[in-house]
Amino acid sequence: MDQNKIPQATAKRLPLYYRFLNNLNQQGKKRVSSKELSEAVKVDSATIRRDFSYFGALGKKGYGYNVEYLLGFFRSTLDQNEVTEVALIGVGNLGTAFLNYNFMKNNNIRITMAFDADREKVGTDIGGIPVYHVDDLDEKLNHIKVAILTIPAIEADSIANKLVEKGITGILNFTPARITVPKAIRVHHIDLAVELQALVYFLKHYSLDK
Amino acid sequence: MDQNKIPQATAKRLPLYYRFLNNLNQQGKKRVSSKELSEAVKVDSATIRRDFSYFGALGKKGYGYNVEYLLGFFRSTLDQNEVTEVALIGVGNLGTAFLNYNFMKNNNIRITMAFDADREKVGTDIGGIPVYHVDDLDEKLNHIKVAILTIPAIEADSIANKLVEKGITGILNFTPARITVPKAIRVHHIDLAVELQALVYFLKHYSLDK
Repeated sequence: MDQNKIPQATAKRLPLYYRFLNNLNQQGKKRVSSKELSEAVKVDSATIRRDFSYFGALGKKGYGYNVEYLLGFFRSTLDQNEVTEVALIGVGNLGTAFLNYNFMKNNNIRITMAFDADREKVGTDIGGIPVYHVDDLDEKLNHIKVAILTIPAIEADSIANKLVEKGITGILNFTPARITVPKAIRVHHIDLAVELQALVYFLKHYSLDK
Repeated sequence: MDQNKIPQATAKRLPLYYRFLNNLNQQGKKRVSSKELSEAVKVDSATIRRDFSYFGALGKKGYGYNVEYLLGFFRSTLDQNEVTEVALIGVGNLGTAFLNYNFMKNNNIRITMAFDADREKVGTDIGGIPVYHVDDLDEKLNHIKVAILTIPAIEADSIANKLVEKGITGILNFTPARITVPKAIRVHHIDLAVELQALVYFLKHYSLDK
């Protein structure tokens, strides 16, 4: 299967499906209907069936989907057999939340190092992850391709430049700054203020009562 | 203008536009082209022009958009003249990050109270916001309609139920749990693990080099 054929909207939902199926499997469940899946992941079941159809017809009417089979399928699709190492830049409250969050529980992404400018934090371990000084990015980063930015907005561009120079190809940007990087670098931007503002706007203007 | 006519995808970008225009205005800039806007907010300029067209033709060829006019327009569209109060439930690292983040700088959303189960935190102020015990939700919440959930996943459903009973209509859910609430309640779900996994997946399967 050519995975480039999966629509991006579908691809975005894969990690969500994967995690829920993993939970089901751990609970010993053998099969799941698209309706159950729908209720659990809050995606309508028509969308789920369409998403799954991109991988071939995996479900059976009146039976649903085989959990173990689906899980194996998603595991290989999401490259869960391969660990991706991630660097976290900025060990403030948000960064610390990431370090303490156990990403490994359901997927093979691991924050393996963190960086901060605060000498008090440098040399410590948070959630088992060593904190280095941000001046040592160049020396420590090595083969890592993915970084999480949880630094003050004002430092975002200069740090992003350093990361790109060092070979980072993907950045999860939690600063309010829209960083400028070469086109080939993928930046996903999550702005907490914008998310909150969007929720408030939708509450006021889009009723969910139908 | 009937704001229900704005597509939801456009509506989601409004806070982003608003914040950038606010910055421009503070810098004393009088006008902005869709190209400049595009580079700053990382949305392609065709999309920006289409988005803006829903509000009527606000731009002029060769001149661009009038910053002050746009800003006034967005301010009223986003109800920036009205303050929305928000409650934050769960004062861990992520919750503390929210409390220290100055939402008021660019918009009229204000976290006015926080709740936690930890007696050591109850009674303190974080970022100027009082922390109450989660058992006092019922007494303290009053007229607040929006809540941010930064609690452990295992508590998400029971807290969400309490919030809904108390009249909350919008929840920004940062727990990995998909909470179950009545249909009329709007839940925006941000799962940090899923965001990270999606970035890694996109990096592997969708090249940005064209």
